Amino acid sequence: MKITRPTLLIDKRRALVNIHQMSHKANQNEISFRPHFKTHQSARIGKWFRKEGISKITVSSVEMAAYFANYGWDDITIAFPVNILEISEINQLAKKIKLGLLVESNETIRFLGENLRAPVRIWIKVDIGYHRTGIPWNQEQEIFALIRETEKKDILKFQGLLTHAGHAYHVRGIPELNAVYEDSVHKLLRIKRFLLREGVQQIQLSYGDTPTCSIINNFAGLDEIRPGNFIFYDVMQLMIGSCMENQIAAAVACPVVAKHTARRELVIYGGAVHLSKEYLTDTTGQVIFGYATSWDGAHWGPIFSDGYVTSLTQEHGIIRCGNTFFNRVNIGNVIVIIPVHSCLTMNLMRHFRVI
Amino acid sequence: MKITRPTLLIDKRRALVNIHQMSHKANQNEISFRPHFKTHQSARIGKWFRKEGISKITVSSVEMAAYFANYGWDDITIAFPVNILEISEINQLAKKIKLGLLVESNETIRFLGENLRAPVRIWIKVDIGYHRTGIPWNQEQEIFALIRETEKKDILKFQGLLTHAGHAYHVRGIPELNAVYEDSVHKLLRIKRFLLREGVQQIQLSYGDTPTCSIINNFAGLDEIRPGNFIFYDVMQLMIGSCMENQIAAAVACPVVAKHTARRELVIYGGAVHLSKEYLTDTTGQVIFGYATSWDGAHWGPIFSDGYVTSLTQEHGIIRCGNTFFNRVNIGNVIVIIPVHSCLTMNLMRHFRVI
Repeated sequence: MKITRPTLLIDKRRALVNIHQMSHKANQNEISFRPHFKTHQSARIGKWFRKEGISKITVSSVEMAAYFANYGWDDITIAFPVNILEISEINQLAKKIKLGLLVESNETIRFLGENLRAPVRIWIKVDIGYHRTGIPWNQEQEIFALIRETEKKDILKFQGLLTHAGHAYHVRGIPELNAVYEDSVHKLLRIKRFLLREGVQQIQLSYGDTPTCSIINNFAGLDEIRPGNFIFYDVMQLMIGSCMENQIAAAVACPVVAKHTARRELVIYGGAVHLSKEYLTDTTGQVIFGYATSWDGAHWGPIFSDGYVTSLTQEHGIIRCGNTFFNRVNIGNVIVIIPVHSCLTMNLMRHFRVI
Repeated sequence: MKITRPTLLIDKRRALVNIHQMSHKANQNEISFRPHFKTHQSARIGKWFRKEGISKITVSSVEMAAYFANYGWDDITIAFPVNILEISEINQLAKKIKLGLLVESNETIRFLGENLRAPVRIWIKVDIGYHRTGIPWNQEQEIFALIRETEKKDILKFQGLLTHAGHAYHVRGIPELNAVYEDSVHKLLRIKRFLLREGVQQIQLSYGDTPTCSIINNFAGLDEIRPGNFIFYDVMQLMIGSCMENQIAAAVACPVVAKHTARRELVIYGGAVHLSKEYLTDTTGQVIFGYATSWDGAHWGPIFSDGYVTSLTQEHGIIRCGNTFFNRVNIGNVIVIIPVHSCLTMNLMRHFRVI
């Protein structure tokens, strides 16, 4: 494969294995698998899921829902608090597909009750510790009030509680991930018991996030999982401990344009507009915008132990590396960068090549 | 103007003033003004420069050069170390327009000498303290050797030394900016004197970066300036001290989708895929992904003293704010975010609306 400029590479075989493993696990648990398509935003990659038998998906915007609906996906949850300004687009979708919406306020529920023109499924967003969106898990009365508000309108079909354990991205290692998962499910089940006692019937629990879904095998208590990033994984998941290196399925091939011997740095054509400015700090305190590896024209190799992206500007990437790596690479060579956050890289690159 | 989703707004009047001021300053100094078009990457905005009499531009990739060449720009410097893997695209451009290329290694110069099919202008990249790319300014012999290598081939037309004072982004306030500028010019002039003594004739000095070019009025010694960001400015320039708030010409209008009273936070539809993950740390240690302001349907207002973007995920932005701002804003309102880095925001949004 000829590379001349920054090129997003997708390892299809690894991606298919990742899809299969997650799907298989959901099937074994007899729960619904509704993968988040914000990671790839691609109708072509959507087909890979379809072949695995997946028919329900999650997205994070009305625009994405409309895009996938155009490609035949007819059961979509928009896992983002309803943007009431897009009511006309939401109505178009609601007439066409089985649409799930996420709410967390009375204002939004009332607005939907008055302005929707077709039935939608309503999920209440619950905050189980991430503190980004949702009603805090311990405010059971408030959650119950929202359900009551939802039930006032036939057009609003209450489904259950939806949550995202985004704080799983801040922990490291299996024991800590297990703890986040157990705590999350404990909180969800506690609210569910409360709501059942109050007479609410049929409460589904929908749970998402790649780190915990990747390491948990027994999803007892849940009705649905919605991971997204797991199709590609990335450096962030590797550092969290939720994937192995050989599961990473997305990387960016970048030409080397300069070498600086005194500071053992390579300059690549590959910057913030390709990889995104997402970074991580490793255990030594080093800021990392991606790991580096080799390119043999067909595949990328194992991550170099001594090479990483130390800074990114608009089009430039700076790779700091050890002697072995540095001496092996010349101007005009191509190296491969494993991104910190594959969702953002995919969003920036838009086009990809399958290896 | 009806806003229903994240929308990039460009204040054309401010942008035109910014263009005029920089252009006027270059004219007064009788130096060349070659604005960097990576900031906007837009043929439409290019026309605003054309009206101000600008005919020479800078870009940061072969792809961008080809894009603007298609829109009639025929004098373009690619201010990025030559990516020799794109030699065929470079040759196409070199046949069509006056093309300037940036080199910093013998390997690249020799490659160009052997593989170019039309004459190009050669600039040697000099590192005056940013340490991203270029030959360190005090390695005069090495710079001289590169010029000698360039002169071996008639097709390579040596122009001079090009530098980017990217470290100006790390200082704060006019005195520090003045110091960066003076130091930069001092270093460039020192190399130039050395090269003149060695018999090199006609050495132009091309200098870029918005922070210093914005605050300097007397460019004595230089032949060309190449700022780019100054057309829009942003929070970063505001913090550096290189612009006033009323010069900022780019912002993103975002719908408010949720309010969290206990922690005085708004959730907006507007995330990393709209604003980029570029952030700044203010004097109190607070991480900031953008400032917030109001939207009256036609213009944005003054930056709120008590509202800023405290975190960004793919589509979500979290605004932390004081009571006044918080109580004034409701779900379904639109607020405006001044981005930290307008170049990256423009690159992500691609489309814009002029106000």
